[in-house]
Amino acid sequence: MERKQIKIGLMGLGTVGGGVWQLLQMNRESIAAKTGLDFEIAKVAVRDLGRKRAVPAERLTDRPEDLYEDPEIQVIVGVLGRPDEGRHLLAAMNAGKHVVTANKAAVAADYEALREAAERNKVLFRYEASVAGGIPILHAIEQSLQGNEYQELMGILNGTTNYILTHMTEEGADYADVLKKAQELGFAEPDPTADVEGIDAANKLSILLSLVFGARVLPKDIPTEGISRISGADIAAAKEQGCKIKLIARAAKTDKGLEYSVRPTLLPKEHPLAGVNNEFNAVFLKGNAVDELMFYGRGAGALPTASAVWGDLIEVGKEIAKGAAYDLVVAGGPAEA
Amino acid sequence: MERKQIKIGLMGLGTVGGGVWQLLQMNRESIAAKTGLDFEIAKVAVRDLGRKRAVPAERLTDRPEDLYEDPEIQVIVGVLGRPDEGRHLLAAMNAGKHVVTANKAAVAADYEALREAAERNKVLFRYEASVAGGIPILHAIEQSLQGNEYQELMGILNGTTNYILTHMTEEGADYADVLKKAQELGFAEPDPTADVEGIDAANKLSILLSLVFGARVLPKDIPTEGISRISGADIAAAKEQGCKIKLIARAAKTDKGLEYSVRPTLLPKEHPLAGVNNEFNAVFLKGNAVDELMFYGRGAGALPTASAVWGDLIEVGKEIAKGAAYDLVVAGGPAEA
Repeated sequence: MERKQIKIGLMGLGTVGGGVWQLLQMNRESIAAKTGLDFEIAKVAVRDLGRKRAVPAERLTDRPEDLYEDPEIQVIVGVLGRPDEGRHLLAAMNAGKHVVTANKAAVAADYEALREAAERNKVLFRYEASVAGGIPILHAIEQSLQGNEYQELMGILNGTTNYILTHMTEEGADYADVLKKAQELGFAEPDPTADVEGIDAANKLSILLSLVFGARVLPKDIPTEGISRISGADIAAAKEQGCKIKLIARAAKTDKGLEYSVRPTLLPKEHPLAGVNNEFNAVFLKGNAVDELMFYGRGAGALPTASAVWGDLIEVGKEIAKGAAYDLVVAGGPAEA
Repeated sequence: MERKQIKIGLMGLGTVGGGVWQLLQMNRESIAAKTGLDFEIAKVAVRDLGRKRAVPAERLTDRPEDLYEDPEIQVIVGVLGRPDEGRHLLAAMNAGKHVVTANKAAVAADYEALREAAERNKVLFRYEASVAGGIPILHAIEQSLQGNEYQELMGILNGTTNYILTHMTEEGADYADVLKKAQELGFAEPDPTADVEGIDAANKLSILLSLVFGARVLPKDIPTEGISRISGADIAAAKEQGCKIKLIARAAKTDKGLEYSVRPTLLPKEHPLAGVNNEFNAVFLKGNAVDELMFYGRGAGALPTASAVWGDLIEVGKEIAKGAAYDLVVAGGPAEA
């Protein structure tokens, strides 16, 4: 079988972008053997052209526009991680490119505009990596679980806060001490606000609210409380009740309508989410047919997030390959089997 | 938007077939609102026409052939659960019908023949419900996770044995006593052999070996040991080592090649699978990009299994709807947007 070439423009070469590059070096052959698709990362947009990188210099540019203005590039991967990334994703769609992104803030902020632009331009828009990193939750909701109506969703959606709470629980240590250690180990950012105040989790919950409950709620409208005021004494008191404290993003249908929040929550030790420790993430769902489900895995990190990006990229590649056969049929040429 | 009608032939009205019927009664409106597809279960094949059932009598037949010989029916759902079901699934494909099934024994036994017949007849063949019931694992492997190469797979794939082991562990009870109680509660069959001897788990592992490692291994060629010789003393000894005994279906790449087995296994209490109790199932995967992942949920039961069948059915329905637009284009008529 002749292999179909798919050319990618990679917008951003930070942690996730580096993982997207690295995964292709690792698994290019096995992906091609499984799918018949030969992917190439043709151009990479970075901020600083002067830094040494794994990517050959001739593929680098400091203008994101160069990616979506290139007629050979078919898919743009948006992993700049900047809040204004949505602008570039929209421009890429308007230039006829399919878009895959891991940027939860951009997806949560510009959801309608991005969906609308994808539809108008007849391009694919996929964002599995924007929620819970490597855990394939969005796709499962959109496909395998679509026969359900949902009653409840609970997620541990932020690895930094789960790491901190786990170590506070295991070591009986206080918040400030564990945060400092987490920062030294690279599990928390120098400015940890977006993580520890629940903002990152609220962005992800906003995306899940759209998909699971069909409800459009902006992150700023989700009641959000972080973990920075949790003390060692709170954790000890929880333990005495046979509970653990976790930062839970929750949505549930109640008599009063759909309720949602991000807040520190007491979970009985038997709850499936109570065993989710350290930097791991998990999503717990309750549907009216499937009942209880939980997905567990790495919610961040270069390669786990790249795994989700590549799942999307390969699906886009398959559609491009199908579309080529389809165009051939419409043009009156011979159809591929 | 006009709703596209999809007509289903339901082959079997046992536990799973009843769930497939019931889910449509529960969620028909929400499915139609989400997808634009209006599903109808037009005909149902049963063994005994004399029994009272929820399905109107005029839709019942005792000839499975009536379903796939009906020109109006587009999809056959195979949930007879009988070992010879593969024969009917093949006949349905040869009659041009898409096929969705939950019958793991038929899929494991006739995998190549079914895949080949689907390809030859250009019909869809989906079987998410055949492994781990409501847990959407097959689809995740085929799509979201397809950028990975896998190192290891471990599954708790049989609810009956996990229920028995959980109660032996919690109550310090012996195998025979717990089995008897499980049979009284309906968690174990009157003849429990296929479950307790690991045969059911081996069928499911055979399907997972194909998808995860691209290896075709018949269930009879998987080294398989059940739980019927586990004693209360074994469980107590495991506990003293900080471990639990679970019936684990495992496959792993080693220096000696791909190894696989179904057998009672000591798991450290901290392992994500150790917390999977009672009739719940789980699949634990390790990929070279995504690292550790676990999917947890109900591996059996009418509605959880029906959730997986309906996930497949709705995807098939979407393809039928797309195909109609495609045929229109080929015939020279106006294309739908």
